[in-house]
Amino acid sequence: MTPQDMLDVAVAEARKGLSEGGIPIGAALFGADGVLLGSGHNRRVQNDDPSVHGETDAFRAAGRQRNYRSTIMVTTLSPCWYCSGLVRQFNIGAVVIGEARTFSGGHDWLAENGVSITLLDDERCVQMMTDFIGAYPELWAEDIGE
Amino acid sequence: MTPQDMLDVAVAEARKGLSEGGIPIGAALFGADGVLLGSGHNRRVQNDDPSVHGETDAFRAAGRQRNYRSTIMVTTLSPCWYCSGLVRQFNIGAVVIGEARTFSGGHDWLAENGVSITLLDDERCVQMMTDFIGAYPELWAEDIGE
Repeated sequence: MTPQDMLDVAVAEARKGLSEGGIPIGAALFGADGVLLGSGHNRRVQNDDPSVHGETDAFRAAGRQRNYRSTIMVTTLSPCWYCSGLVRQFNIGAVVIGEARTFSGGHDWLAENGVSITLLDDERCVQMMTDFIGAYPELWAEDIGE
Repeated sequence: MTPQDMLDVAVAEARKGLSEGGIPIGAALFGADGVLLGSGHNRRVQNDDPSVHGETDAFRAAGRQRNYRSTIMVTTLSPCWYCSGLVRQFNIGAVVIGEARTFSGGHDWLAENGVSITLLDDERCVQMMTDFIGAYPELWAEDIGE
């Protein structure tokens, strides 16, 4: 499974979130063998829950795992500090990122701490966030604590 | 409301978690005026959900807030990277910590990034985690990704 194949799963989650009226950020956690462990998307609006970012939703959906070293987190957008902290604490080995143009979180910090980072600069992801931020700037500011 | 008063709320949450068979870490988010916005505890065991740490549960319980700068997160244990990332991303202004003897997370990093840190070294918190880690070392290792 290529990083692009994995990103497609995250993009589908982001689009699902958008169709629900939510913030279009999706993520998925894969095992080293390319098996999908769980996927999810931002649910701030849908669940009225500020704690559910794309990555934390995918992590939750993957259930309790004994070791994350060989897992890969794929996300449509550069992980914020909250989600970067999740990756670091649980020693998730690799992160595949759709884009970091509309928002840049903690992925350099993760790289400095030994996490393998793949930044794809995917045009679909850039467009989706650019459109969303343009349409709902206050909601986006709320989601990143600004 | 003193830091110790706020810690009492987090300790009550940790004890509730313990009585449910869970990992005894509790937290609460307070407004600057001392109003309790939300409290919670680790729910890995109870909900079979690895994404619910004490701090993320308290953050969720507080609901959507437009600004966290004047809020205070109190937690029975030094926040792990996941929960430290939450504090940094949402610009929570202060963190009150029960103890950092049994586990030391990202509180120094938060201090370097402008978060006010109060470390109480509370004996109840130390005892609760010492007893728990001694009784369930594997569950504890799972919760911190080790």
